[in-house]
Amino acid sequence: MNSCLVNNPWRAGTLEMGPKRVTVGILGLGTVGTGVLRLLDGNGDRVAQAAGVRVEVAGVAVRDVHKPRVVTPAPGLLKGDPGAVVNDPGVDLVVEVMGGLEPAGAWVLRALELGKPVVTANKELVASRGRELLDAAFRHRTRLRFEASVGGGIPIIAALGDSLAGNRVGQIIGILNGTTNYILSRMTSDGVEFPAALAEAQARGYAESDPGADVSGQDAACKIAILASVAFGVHVPAAEVPREGIAGITSRDVACARELGCVIKLLASAKEEGGTVRARVFPALLPLDHPLAAVTGVFNAVWVTGDAVGETMFYGQGAGQLPTASAVVGDIIASARELARGGVFHPLLVWDRPKPAQAPGPSEAAFYFRMLVSEQPGALAAAVSVLGDQEVALARFTSRGRGQGGTEWVLVTQPVEEQRLKDALCIIQGLPAVKQVGNAIRILDAPSGCG
Amino acid sequence: MNSCLVNNPWRAGTLEMGPKRVTVGILGLGTVGTGVLRLLDGNGDRVAQAAGVRVEVAGVAVRDVHKPRVVTPAPGLLKGDPGAVVNDPGVDLVVEVMGGLEPAGAWVLRALELGKPVVTANKELVASRGRELLDAAFRHRTRLRFEASVGGGIPIIAALGDSLAGNRVGQIIGILNGTTNYILSRMTSDGVEFPAALAEAQARGYAESDPGADVSGQDAACKIAILASVAFGVHVPAAEVPREGIAGITSRDVACARELGCVIKLLASAKEEGGTVRARVFPALLPLDHPLAAVTGVFNAVWVTGDAVGETMFYGQGAGQLPTASAVVGDIIASARELARGGVFHPLLVWDRPKPAQAPGPSEAAFYFRMLVSEQPGALAAAVSVLGDQEVALARFTSRGRGQGGTEWVLVTQPVEEQRLKDALCIIQGLPAVKQVGNAIRILDAPSGCG
Repeated sequence: MNSCLVNNPWRAGTLEMGPKRVTVGILGLGTVGTGVLRLLDGNGDRVAQAAGVRVEVAGVAVRDVHKPRVVTPAPGLLKGDPGAVVNDPGVDLVVEVMGGLEPAGAWVLRALELGKPVVTANKELVASRGRELLDAAFRHRTRLRFEASVGGGIPIIAALGDSLAGNRVGQIIGILNGTTNYILSRMTSDGVEFPAALAEAQARGYAESDPGADVSGQDAACKIAILASVAFGVHVPAAEVPREGIAGITSRDVACARELGCVIKLLASAKEEGGTVRARVFPALLPLDHPLAAVTGVFNAVWVTGDAVGETMFYGQGAGQLPTASAVVGDIIASARELARGGVFHPLLVWDRPKPAQAPGPSEAAFYFRMLVSEQPGALAAAVSVLGDQEVALARFTSRGRGQGGTEWVLVTQPVEEQRLKDALCIIQGLPAVKQVGNAIRILDAPSGCG
Repeated sequence: MNSCLVNNPWRAGTLEMGPKRVTVGILGLGTVGTGVLRLLDGNGDRVAQAAGVRVEVAGVAVRDVHKPRVVTPAPGLLKGDPGAVVNDPGVDLVVEVMGGLEPAGAWVLRALELGKPVVTANKELVASRGRELLDAAFRHRTRLRFEASVGGGIPIIAALGDSLAGNRVGQIIGILNGTTNYILSRMTSDGVEFPAALAEAQARGYAESDPGADVSGQDAACKIAILASVAFGVHVPAAEVPREGIAGITSRDVACARELGCVIKLLASAKEEGGTVRARVFPALLPLDHPLAAVTGVFNAVWVTGDAVGETMFYGQGAGQLPTASAVVGDIIASARELARGGVFHPLLVWDRPKPAQAPGPSEAAFYFRMLVSEQPGALAAAVSVLGDQEVALARFTSRGRGQGGTEWVLVTQPVEEQRLKDALCIIQGLPAVKQVGNAIRILDAPSGCG
């Protein structure tokens, strides 16, 4: 035995001590709740070492206490009523992994009103009511933590809210939805079309039977709203984040992007500009040498720039039982440390800066789009003339014979205001030679350029 | 004005409060110290918001108080004696950015003995005396933080020690030295030889005039020793980390690696195996599709696997004034929060697990090496026979005519114990047909394979 252990005053019991244990009440025992129980059980020694106190589960609220389960909590711990957990004076800290807005929201609020710290994995709840819940936590001198709500096990909330807190964040660009990244990766690597890639994602359990929230960008919008709120200290409502999904992307778009030295990714971005926070979700052509371009399959990544730290990137599994539980347990450890320490409450995270988030106004980007036209003289001149009228300048044009379907044009614009391009494409769609105009997809700015 | 601001009890002054400010004493005003002053000054509002209290500089110790400086602290703050800062009762928290083992070590210890939290960027100090200093912090109920000692602004210590603390870490693989990564990147992108790439790195200020600590792997060994200590809770002395540098890597090695679908990187790795922690620094062939393969130039990255979180990666600038200051200020914020909170001390990070780190014993890997031979019958048979005697099996062999210099062989082995291969190469070096045997470079295991 080494001398440090012998001399260790904590182990020798000579230091004044906080509580010897912190008790946790868990609301919900689905995929994530089961993962949290597994980790607290299997890695309990690690958790105790990191928290400075033992963390014990004192109650688990489930809908049906008699249902057979993969992980069975000790007898007496299962409760049919969340109130029996939240209101239990023997529960120090509440973990909400029920999901959904209600009744999860009411129980989180109740726990905070009791002054109990809350850890949640619930992105819908934080994105829609984060400001109100943080305010309640604040008033009742406790904390709300939600690392697991964005990016699964990637510690991105901690990075933005703690480690990089000395920086002014410039921009956040994330691949925040594993389902759509899997679909786009399959379309890129094997040239399959969107419906087939989606079906495959569903068969593998990467996509819900109703994939709407993923494919439409709604899930990513929730997550970037949360990241933007943390980074800029202002509540960004998810509903106000403009979003475009990926259902319109074709394997031909993916192939054309590749020819331009790019991959197509569904990105979520946020930055502060002229006093307002702009967030959006959109598919984009990303240069192959951008660090985010290498993020494939169900992985997530968040690229963050700060005025001091420069460029950083955080990468990992964005979903799944144990990655999400890893983030929940990280938050439990942080909360348990504070509970063990006691002391005077001091406020940290608030989203009340008097600088409202705004829907993005006009913003410029270069765009890629495809058109199918019938070969006839003057067709290009007509199209270019319409673009010119809207002040859309071309950076690149390629024409390619495609047999009986007509001729394919692939066009890349100079940076242009989006609405001007959309207006132009609307008119172009009506030109006699034009059979079809594909989606305009923005090209991400990158120092290395693209296209 | 919105209702949250009006109702905010903290701003209304109705909550019991900790101190309204925390004072910082800074030891050293070189590159990093200047960056810390700049950030605390320029981003003071962000820091106060994140810390929950204002952070004010109360003293800066420098060798020469009269020297002209880029950033000039307020009059009276500069002290010629570190003791005047450390011992000042008006200094709550000490930031050590002097560098070097002494007198930095003595002042850090003194501050901890006074119960003052210490933030340091000093990798040599933490790698060599981290255990003793953490123990001192522990005994005096305060904290030692050292995020800036590894990976510049990348929050990797926080990730391992806090966010991922519910995981059992499987393996850490890092690109932890920006100088050597820049050199290898230049050798890869432009085919220049090591001496030219080093000279270029020096001309750009990326390498010291004495680049020994970088090129030999000593700097990376310090950093992986620190990461391993944090991840596994056991002090890994940097001096015991086996290391190989990159001075022997040639542009021909880089080109051969590329043909095998790999890039050459200087890696630092650590894992726990059979009850001991194994760390090492070595150049390696890394498959191009490994997330670390895309980390080029002066950037650093750390790839971490955990039993819950799976694969993660953290990427950013590994050095430089402001990235390093970003990490120091993150630690100042964490320390200021605790000071503001007060409460009962509870122990967190200790490196006293009774599981000693051990120098790696035999370990298996596949290796790449090159040989120059003179064309003569039986040469390959002789070499293969020597390899076979040492139980080294080949995975791949390519022979290439190289004009007057002889024939070049490129060989890749099956996984083999390193010492056996070295013994075999020693014998092969003496074979009559063999003109030269290059360095054996290990090939990193990756699911996707390589070579």
